[in-house]
Amino acid sequence: MADQSAVFKTQVKRSKDRANYDREVIHSIIDEAFLCHVGFCDEGVPYVIPMAFARHDDILYLHGSSKARIAKALDGNKRVCVTFTHLDGLVLAKSYFHHSMNYRSAVLFGSCRIVDDPDELYLGFEQLMIHLTPGQERRTRGPNKGELKATSLLAFDIQEATAKIRKGPPKEGSEDADINMWTGVLPLALTAGEPITEEGAEVPENVLALKAKLSP
Amino acid sequence: MADQSAVFKTQVKRSKDRANYDREVIHSIIDEAFLCHVGFCDEGVPYVIPMAFARHDDILYLHGSSKARIAKALDGNKRVCVTFTHLDGLVLAKSYFHHSMNYRSAVLFGSCRIVDDPDELYLGFEQLMIHLTPGQERRTRGPNKGELKATSLLAFDIQEATAKIRKGPPKEGSEDADINMWTGVLPLALTAGEPITEEGAEVPENVLALKAKLSP
Repeated sequence: MADQSAVFKTQVKRSKDRANYDREVIHSIIDEAFLCHVGFCDEGVPYVIPMAFARHDDILYLHGSSKARIAKALDGNKRVCVTFTHLDGLVLAKSYFHHSMNYRSAVLFGSCRIVDDPDELYLGFEQLMIHLTPGQERRTRGPNKGELKATSLLAFDIQEATAKIRKGPPKEGSEDADINMWTGVLPLALTAGEPITEEGAEVPENVLALKAKLSP
Repeated sequence: MADQSAVFKTQVKRSKDRANYDREVIHSIIDEAFLCHVGFCDEGVPYVIPMAFARHDDILYLHGSSKARIAKALDGNKRVCVTFTHLDGLVLAKSYFHHSMNYRSAVLFGSCRIVDDPDELYLGFEQLMIHLTPGQERRTRGPNKGELKATSLLAFDIQEATAKIRKGPPKEGSEDADINMWTGVLPLALTAGEPITEEGAEVPENVLALKAKLSP
C-alpha cells in the first residue's frame, strides 16, 4: 500500500545511512525490463539514451543503436547513471493533489567500459539474447568474428543502486471525505501481442512462452 | 520498414545540418507517453529520474516524486535532457547480430525552471491531469492554495529534439539465406487492465475511454 524503497551498494564505501538494503528487489526491477535509460555527462551536457541490456551478477551489458561518439563518452566513464522504470498504473483520486502513479523504478550508479575481450563479448551478447528472448541464444546463429568486431558492447559495473516503489490505491485528504465519486487505479503493463511471422511457419515455443509471460 | 529519424530545433541557432525536421513525429512520441526520463548533471554526476509530464506547445511540465534537491538542481539549469521511449516489439532474426528492437524514442535538450507563478502552476497541473487521464481535470477537485505551495512543478523548454524510430521485420545477412527457421516480431505495447475500484461503484466514462484506448 505504502511507498517503498530499496538500496544497495556493491562496494560499501560510505556509512550505511539507508535503512533498506535490498538487492533482490532491485535485481527484480532490472530483470523485468527490456530496456534502460543510460545517462552520462559530456562536457557538462547530460545525455539520456535508451539501451538494451542484460544483467550478469552486478554487471549490466549495454547495447544500443548508439553512435561511436556515445560509446566513446561512456568508455572508462566512472560516473554513469542507469535507470529502470516500470509504470504499473494510474492512481485516480478525488483531488488533483492525490493523483499519482504506481511504479517501480531503480536508479543505478557505476562505471562503464567498452568490452574488448572476445570471450566477454560473446558472453555479453549471449546474455542479451537470453535476457530479451530466452531460447534465441540456442535457436539462432551466434556472432562471427566480423560481427563481434562490428558491434559495440558496454559493461556497466553497478556500484550503487536505489529503488522506489509505489503501489496500491489512492490516498485521500480528510477534507474530501464527504465527496462521493469513483476512485481507484487503472493498471498498466507492457504486454505482448500476436507474433508477426516474417519467415517460416510455426512460431517457436520460446517465443510463445515469452508471449504467454507477457500476456494481459 | 527502415529506420527513421526526425529532428527539430525550436530556436535554430546552428546550421540546419539535419535532414529531417519533423516536429509532428516528435510531438506524437512525446504525447503518447505517460512518463519521461529526465537527465541532468550535478557536480559532474549524471542523474536520470523518471517523471510524469504534460506537453503544452514546446514546454513540458514535469512532476515527480523527486526530492527538493533534484528540483533545486533542475531550477535554472540550461542543460537538461528529457528522453521518451516506446518499446514496440522484439525483432527476432536468424542470427544474434540481426536481432533488434522496434521502438520510437525522442531525446530533447533544453532548460528547466521551477514554476512559481500561481496561474502557470494551476495551468501546469491541469495539463498534467488532461494528459494522464483526460476528464479527470473536470471530475476531481482542483488544487487549493496549500496544495499548490506543497507541490513542485518544473517547466522544461524544448530547444532541440531528435527522434529515432525502428519498425518492421528483421534484416538478415545474405550468408543466412539458406537457413530455414521462424523469424519475425513479437509486438509489445503498454496496455491497460481492468480498473480497480477503491470507492464508488460505476467506473466513469473517461476512465473507460482511456482503458479502451490502451486495450490490447
